[in-house]
Amino acid sequence: MHSKSERPEEAERPKVTERPEVPAAASPRELDAMRRALELAAAEVGATGSNPAVGCVLLDPDGTTVATGVHRGPGTAHAEVDALRRAQGRQHGTTAVVTLEPCDHQGRTGPCSRALIEAGVRRVLYAVADPNRVAAGGARRLADAGIEVVGGVLRAEAEAVLEMWLTAIRTGRPFVTWKFATTLDGRSAAADGSSRWISSAESRADAHELRARHDAVLVGSGTWRADDPRLDLRHGVTGRPPLRVALDARGELPPDSRLLDGTAPTLVVTDPATGAEADGVGGVGSTGCTGRTGRTGRTGRTGRTGHTDGANGTAGGIDVLRLKTDAHGHFPPLALLDALDGRGVRSVLLEGGPALAASFVRAGLVDRVVAHVAPLLLGSEGVGATGALGVGSIDAAHRFRITSVDRTGPDLRVELRPAARTGGTR
Amino acid sequence: MHSKSERPEEAERPKVTERPEVPAAASPRELDAMRRALELAAAEVGATGSNPAVGCVLLDPDGTTVATGVHRGPGTAHAEVDALRRAQGRQHGTTAVVTLEPCDHQGRTGPCSRALIEAGVRRVLYAVADPNRVAAGGARRLADAGIEVVGGVLRAEAEAVLEMWLTAIRTGRPFVTWKFATTLDGRSAAADGSSRWISSAESRADAHELRARHDAVLVGSGTWRADDPRLDLRHGVTGRPPLRVALDARGELPPDSRLLDGTAPTLVVTDPATGAEADGVGGVGSTGCTGRTGRTGRTGRTGRTGHTDGANGTAGGIDVLRLKTDAHGHFPPLALLDALDGRGVRSVLLEGGPALAASFVRAGLVDRVVAHVAPLLLGSEGVGATGALGVGSIDAAHRFRITSVDRTGPDLRVELRPAARTGGTR
Repeated sequence: MHSKSERPEEAERPKVTERPEVPAAASPRELDAMRRALELAAAEVGATGSNPAVGCVLLDPDGTTVATGVHRGPGTAHAEVDALRRAQGRQHGTTAVVTLEPCDHQGRTGPCSRALIEAGVRRVLYAVADPNRVAAGGARRLADAGIEVVGGVLRAEAEAVLEMWLTAIRTGRPFVTWKFATTLDGRSAAADGSSRWISSAESRADAHELRARHDAVLVGSGTWRADDPRLDLRHGVTGRPPLRVALDARGELPPDSRLLDGTAPTLVVTDPATGAEADGVGGVGSTGCTGRTGRTGRTGRTGRTGHTDGANGTAGGIDVLRLKTDAHGHFPPLALLDALDGRGVRSVLLEGGPALAASFVRAGLVDRVVAHVAPLLLGSEGVGATGALGVGSIDAAHRFRITSVDRTGPDLRVELRPAARTGGTR
Repeated sequence: MHSKSERPEEAERPKVTERPEVPAAASPRELDAMRRALELAAAEVGATGSNPAVGCVLLDPDGTTVATGVHRGPGTAHAEVDALRRAQGRQHGTTAVVTLEPCDHQGRTGPCSRALIEAGVRRVLYAVADPNRVAAGGARRLADAGIEVVGGVLRAEAEAVLEMWLTAIRTGRPFVTWKFATTLDGRSAAADGSSRWISSAESRADAHELRARHDAVLVGSGTWRADDPRLDLRHGVTGRPPLRVALDARGELPPDSRLLDGTAPTLVVTDPATGAEADGVGGVGSTGCTGRTGRTGRTGRTGRTGHTDGANGTAGGIDVLRLKTDAHGHFPPLALLDALDGRGVRSVLLEGGPALAASFVRAGLVDRVVAHVAPLLLGSEGVGATGALGVGSIDAAHRFRITSVDRTGPDLRVELRPAARTGGTR
């Protein structure tokens, strides 16, 4: 009887070690380097577009950091290549500590596996295996080239950093966070519709931070009608502004809406049947992208700017997505996510409205809930924070589990994940 | 010019030192003794009826504990006297560390001030001055007798232990805790009324613990109609069962209600106008106390027992309170609290119903909110956890501040106090 290791073709090939727990194979300095690489990656979440946020640290044989690298989005260097460049010739014989398995894919940049081999890297540690079939295989390629490869180093921490991108790759649709502000008694506005401010300045700043972490922010027509929101980054939050997605089934988004102010890319989703009927009166949705005006902040119009085609990557560009509504005049959430996925969106922040959120909850398409719970009571006269969820009996309640509880000023910040995934994946 | 201390009548009399912070005048051993006394007191909260929960520790001059004492309710020894008795002759020359200023009042038991003086106690430390005009003056009397007296030792901690009783004495009405279970979206039941179980077993056990800490538990007619609750102590919680108070304006509480099972005292509150109309059909409320049946648990009737007059102190006794309802057929919350106060109730737990809770919130008569927030969503079809609060606009929201956040199993346990007291005190 032969053990596997005695089989000649295996004995020739160094193994890829994958361990779910902290591997003994990683030294304390390597673990520190992985933590640093994860910090670098975490800081880029929301800024890398359709690509994952990845960090890399190169260590010399003593465990001293030679260089660090980070990926900043499509068309820019991967973290490993960024670190190799910054090493300025000192990369030979180093250990590369990287948060995601090096890719083996020739895309806009060359495969990282080849770059690491050519640089003479001696050893590679990574946290999470690449779930992307196109890019996977890097660890195998490195091991085949005689490089020591250890996977699964601080995997849980890395999966938390990469949660949104990993979910997007595994499910084939963007990760969805539903953020809402509510009173302790589940109200989002008072009887007269007033809601400024239910939540505290700290909660609102946290909401802007959430925007910066997502590729797109999605609002329904109820929200843009009521609030004329900007959906931009304020409250001291900086970063890449998310794509603003406004649902406008009937082509009624006013041309002077703040969403069309040209300060950040906007996608207006409208029904293909709308154009003819609305006859241009309703602005963008009905006639393509011609209704746009450029505005700066709340100070009024600053002049018209020309139409920018396609491209949510274009700063301030406005694009129209035509998507069929269902029998009730609503966009099917999964079809909407599919379309966004096709535009490189890997994470969506649902910001508003009870009806929109309800449609995603019903479809089992909410991956995370962030609730800012204000210590107020508005009573039964208030406007409910959730719409109709199709729950007739307690047994059919939508169940979540609380994954973190924090305070944002006087409010509670509660983060939840689905208790058990019952749908929404493919 | 004379300073106060030079005035002869003041110079003769030792001072009572009162300090809000930890007094330097208390030694580490004395502070430890106060913490122990507070623990003893805290364990009795809810078990001392109309009297405060008080603990006492006697220390010999070395700081060694000679004896401890605790008060267990009207008719039993006060904590100081309990400790002096347990000292069995070793009380002379000790320091008495007590959570509340020793009383100077001849009630069912003699004044503690005199007992301490007669016992030859050398020094007395207390945490909170007695706010009760009838009983106050003990510190002065002790100081006049030449005993060193230090007040305000760990006052904040003691005020937390005595919160309910102190509020009752200061406001002249019982302290009110509103406890409710809610989903994250502010629902207390699903569309079909089903609510078992919105909250977790841990939250329900916590609710029973709350019952044990209050003198009375109050429910409206909606709750006893829907749930036929027992309002007793289960889930491993022991202690003195609270007085069960059932609002029954129209005299419709069924004679076989669990609230009338004789296992704990019950007070049925009915309108004086009800008796004649209801003609005995509705049971207790309409005809006095004759509709009562004795039952054990859910197993059915075990036989009738005779009428027990008055007395919520009587185990299992049923009493009727006749109180006028307002034009809408509701009992005015403050009048109800007044009547309960007259029966020695110093703390009330509001357990149910949205309408009942709303009437107390509107009247500014909720001193504490305990919310068990379950990570469920029931949507707008669900039954709201709060009733009509008369809030038209966000500016008129009832505002609280979060004073603690804990987990009870999968749920959040959020405790709140009014942000600013705007009513309800006299």
